[in-house]
Amino acid sequence: MSQDSFKSYILKKFNISFNDESLLTEALTQRNYLNEHPDEKGRDYQRLEFLGDSVMQMIVAEYLFKRYPDWHEGQLTEMRIAMVQTRSFAHFSRMVHLNEGIRLGKGEEMSGARDRDSLLEDIWEAFIGALYLDQGADVVRQFLNQTLFAAIDTDFFDRFIDFKSRLQERLQTKGSVDIDYQTEKEEQLSDNTQLFEASVSANDKELARGTGKSIKDAEKAAARAALKILEDNVNL
Amino acid sequence: MSQDSFKSYILKKFNISFNDESLLTEALTQRNYLNEHPDEKGRDYQRLEFLGDSVMQMIVAEYLFKRYPDWHEGQLTEMRIAMVQTRSFAHFSRMVHLNEGIRLGKGEEMSGARDRDSLLEDIWEAFIGALYLDQGADVVRQFLNQTLFAAIDTDFFDRFIDFKSRLQERLQTKGSVDIDYQTEKEEQLSDNTQLFEASVSANDKELARGTGKSIKDAEKAAARAALKILEDNVNL
Repeated sequence: MSQDSFKSYILKKFNISFNDESLLTEALTQRNYLNEHPDEKGRDYQRLEFLGDSVMQMIVAEYLFKRYPDWHEGQLTEMRIAMVQTRSFAHFSRMVHLNEGIRLGKGEEMSGARDRDSLLEDIWEAFIGALYLDQGADVVRQFLNQTLFAAIDTDFFDRFIDFKSRLQERLQTKGSVDIDYQTEKEEQLSDNTQLFEASVSANDKELARGTGKSIKDAEKAAARAALKILEDNVNL
Repeated sequence: MSQDSFKSYILKKFNISFNDESLLTEALTQRNYLNEHPDEKGRDYQRLEFLGDSVMQMIVAEYLFKRYPDWHEGQLTEMRIAMVQTRSFAHFSRMVHLNEGIRLGKGEEMSGARDRDSLLEDIWEAFIGALYLDQGADVVRQFLNQTLFAAIDTDFFDRFIDFKSRLQERLQTKGSVDIDYQTEKEEQLSDNTQLFEASVSANDKELARGTGKSIKDAEKAAARAALKILEDNVNL
């Protein structure tokens, strides 16, 4: 996919059309590409990345603030950290095919930078910076509604949240608590994988259970379920 | 100054009047104040601080991006760090008398929290969060034009920038350079203070001189002057 086919893609998929296409080009241009094409005017993506980084921070913060009026600042911060980070941005860069539109130097291309999370994070931020400058905050919000914000509903960001630590912090706010995880069941599935069930207890009282394809995942699911129960009880 | 007199102050000075005054109250209320006034409904400032933190990051980033079209991302980032930090926000909190409007717990009042930079930083961010929610981004920009952004023109933020490190990085991009600072003059002023003049040299070639009330300040001024000369030459 070239920059032109990326332009068609975002028009078709997101109804986004840049007024100033040089901003999109700048967002998708890596420094060494320019070194190798000295006749090209224009800049690399780094200034737009600087801008887009703070645009992401702020639009995600505002979204979470309004969507979760009952969350305290610690919960908001944790969710923002899960959403605004390298692996998240790299995932969404690939999802909207930003990676295919980048103009890379030859060395970077050879070394596999096009699929490197750190570059894809930078490019995501630069693209958001360009989109914000060209189209304004509301179009960025609409674009995020179809990408990052939609992913909240599929629990996509849960993989970046350490539910076991969060449960521990939550339980220990009122002093020392003995937290214990037990593997309760282990099942062989037809596709040759295993399914585990784990329980989590506080001071020998079982709080919740969870299942997963590894013991680690099952314990994480149990911690997540226990947190859910604790939060629901507080909000009663 | 109470919250009411703070409201009159920002109306008179900045022409700001909140539609939802409970947002302003929330921004100026510390947690222990609520603990001591259990009949009061409402929250403390922490959620608004979460929001205002990212609003500040983003509006400052956008401002610098547009004001300095020739700066690379390193310069932009350095200036943003100088502007968006505890000592800066505490200074502007005092300047607009936010500190006088905070509702503090008794313990915090006794221990001098009202003049503590870390609290004044939080309150600045919470106030910006409230202003953004109530009045929108443009009003925040106007308010910052009269406070933080105006201070750029008086070199206020230079105190937070390490010009000696910046000069060193700048000179060493193309290999090792021997940088040397010398105190050239020392003068006794009539008010019993001293004035120093320092020079900075790279590989024994003098780049610039600067003066200050301490050797450290004089060297910083020399580094700043050298950077200015280097940047002007690049832009020729």
